Amino acid sequence: MILDLINKKRLGKELSYQELDYFFNGYLNGDVADYQMSAMLMAICINGMSDEETFALTKVFIDSGDILDFSDLPGVKVDKHSTGGIGDKTTLVIVPIVAACGGTVVKMSGRGLGYTGGTIDKLESIPGFRVDLSDEEIIKQVHDIGLVVTGQTADLVPMDKVIYSLRDVTSTVSSIPLIASSIMSKKIAGGADKIIIDIKVGNGALLTRRDDAKKLSDLMIRIGKYYNREVRTIISDMNTPLGYAIGNSVEVLEAMDVLKGIEKNNTFVDLCYELASNMVSMCLDIPISDALKKVKKSIQDLSAYHKFEEMVHAQKGDLSKIKVSSKEYILKAPYSGVIKKINALELGKLSQSLGAGKVEIQDKIDYTVGIRLHKQVGDFVKEGDALATIFYNKSLPSIDFNNIYKFD
Amino acid sequence: MILDLINKKRLGKELSYQELDYFFNGYLNGDVADYQMSAMLMAICINGMSDEETFALTKVFIDSGDILDFSDLPGVKVDKHSTGGIGDKTTLVIVPIVAACGGTVVKMSGRGLGYTGGTIDKLESIPGFRVDLSDEEIIKQVHDIGLVVTGQTADLVPMDKVIYSLRDVTSTVSSIPLIASSIMSKKIAGGADKIIIDIKVGNGALLTRRDDAKKLSDLMIRIGKYYNREVRTIISDMNTPLGYAIGNSVEVLEAMDVLKGIEKNNTFVDLCYELASNMVSMCLDIPISDALKKVKKSIQDLSAYHKFEEMVHAQKGDLSKIKVSSKEYILKAPYSGVIKKINALELGKLSQSLGAGKVEIQDKIDYTVGIRLHKQVGDFVKEGDALATIFYNKSLPSIDFNNIYKFD
Repeated sequence: MILDLINKKRLGKELSYQELDYFFNGYLNGDVADYQMSAMLMAICINGMSDEETFALTKVFIDSGDILDFSDLPGVKVDKHSTGGIGDKTTLVIVPIVAACGGTVVKMSGRGLGYTGGTIDKLESIPGFRVDLSDEEIIKQVHDIGLVVTGQTADLVPMDKVIYSLRDVTSTVSSIPLIASSIMSKKIAGGADKIIIDIKVGNGALLTRRDDAKKLSDLMIRIGKYYNREVRTIISDMNTPLGYAIGNSVEVLEAMDVLKGIEKNNTFVDLCYELASNMVSMCLDIPISDALKKVKKSIQDLSAYHKFEEMVHAQKGDLSKIKVSSKEYILKAPYSGVIKKINALELGKLSQSLGAGKVEIQDKIDYTVGIRLHKQVGDFVKEGDALATIFYNKSLPSIDFNNIYKFD
Repeated sequence: MILDLINKKRLGKELSYQELDYFFNGYLNGDVADYQMSAMLMAICINGMSDEETFALTKVFIDSGDILDFSDLPGVKVDKHSTGGIGDKTTLVIVPIVAACGGTVVKMSGRGLGYTGGTIDKLESIPGFRVDLSDEEIIKQVHDIGLVVTGQTADLVPMDKVIYSLRDVTSTVSSIPLIASSIMSKKIAGGADKIIIDIKVGNGALLTRRDDAKKLSDLMIRIGKYYNREVRTIISDMNTPLGYAIGNSVEVLEAMDVLKGIEKNNTFVDLCYELASNMVSMCLDIPISDALKKVKKSIQDLSAYHKFEEMVHAQKGDLSKIKVSSKEYILKAPYSGVIKKINALELGKLSQSLGAGKVEIQDKIDYTVGIRLHKQVGDFVKEGDALATIFYNKSLPSIDFNNIYKFD
């Protein structure tokens, strides 16, 4: 039976819900071996899956663990997901904006993976900040102030964890139906009424081709329709890091600058506005143009920033104690020119090697290290101009300018 | 690096010799995990391999173990391989024929796998017959009488053993480049100068489609050209069992009947003649029509049968002690008609369940059990006519007539 199912997918035939259920749960309970699951995953990667198969696999994923229910909380629960990128601190910015605009946000975030940072790690760079709230604490905080960002409380989609680990070591990550069912199952099991997904494309992202991002977008919208969840998507560039900061505390500080209106008019701020407007539009069921006005107002009148402060306070964080390492290295332009490219992937790796992300599972994150860019793509710089400040602690890794920057 | 190579094949790109060498030897030495090899094998199954890749993989296989050299022995060494079938005792017939015609044959054979019997098991049904000859004994016997059939003496292509085991449990068996490199590496490492391959097609065979058999044939001929070995192929039917007997001692007795000229004018005898003529033609470098004359003469003058007796004698077997179980069950036609189909696969399974083949690795083969067919496809039978005799020992398995026979 196990072999028949692998064979069926090898030949590019469709598997039924019962067959997917049998095979994937067989893996969880040990009847299907690692090497059989990896053969199946490779067959799925190459031969693809129909919509019906993807819907079925999403259900198998959802049913593998707990399913959260926030229907007691007021308002429409909108969740946001990013497929991951370098310097992506959008959650820190948009959750307070949406709450300030009258939306209710319960955001469960994750930790960093490889050279991609995690929102929970970033929040932990605020001394005292609690990311381990109980269900009761979450519900109380949302009732009181309308927002919470915390770690996962429940055992959501445990199957995704084991399958993802196997995909990671068998080159079967970049399959559109597998990515779609992984993301959508977690959002649906997490209790979201509506979902907005930020699909990153570029060398620092899971997907490197725009047409793959479009396919993923369309598929997630169809999965949403099938499960009666409104899904909106944004496809955004991840060849260049998002914003100016990469690390943990440096990213929190940048998010605060955006919320205070100090940082503005760049692609990161634009992305935050686009995501926040969509979330407000979905939460309050208003047109996106009206939502955008509310978003801009929440920045101008500092109500979004105050929501951020309220949240930090409620979760016992102390903003006055955020620390960035005092050991700085200024990376200077070796010659003059216009910046044509800033390599997101290379900066992600540099940030990880500084200690901002784990290399081994037992590593401790250094919240104080990171990178702050002073120039962006399109900027003209003169020889000797400061391009970036590297905040390091133990030792400074070797930095190859030509790996990171391309000048015209 | 390991993941890059899997990814390359996932995308359908070509792997170099160095890459295949690194990956497959990485599996042997433990750097590549089972689940990574199975993902690679599945990608190969679906995306295929170029000729250059197949030649390279064949080399990686050959170099994984010992390589035999029979260049000291007189004459051209021709080896024969069958992709496996039910009732396939051709080796027992053609090796003596070729030797009687003046060829030199060193044949290393294998044991049964699943419901497919093995030549070595069949020979062991001759009491006393030795299949564990040393290299010195092999060379002496070939010098003395010109033929030997024995088990593998050396550690030929150990990589094939481990890869085949994994393919068997991951539905990655039926890949033409993988089958071709597996067979050809064993024949080349086994010291053959020229090779004839009997490719079976049908429900009792590895390949079920004739066009796949043609592709495999063409590919093996191209591998042979690359390695400077003449390769001839025969594509033969395996929907119907070969000849009249299925089992061990019953098959030896049938082979002897063919060698004595008692059994003639059937598809099994035709196949033996075709294979033997090709081998003689290759051994002696003569046209196939001349070879066929020699083959027929060796049957008529009993010189082939005497070669068989010489071989059995040299390898300490005693033909007078061959035993077939005395417990017989006669399968009778439940109604009259013309036999349209005799299902090879079902008879293979029946023979295995009688004890003629192992179900579990620790099982002992019962050489005395088996099946002898009295009627062939195309024969008209009357209700109550004996279709087959089942020789059993412990207990008679249930036999479903309709599973085995189709009548017109």
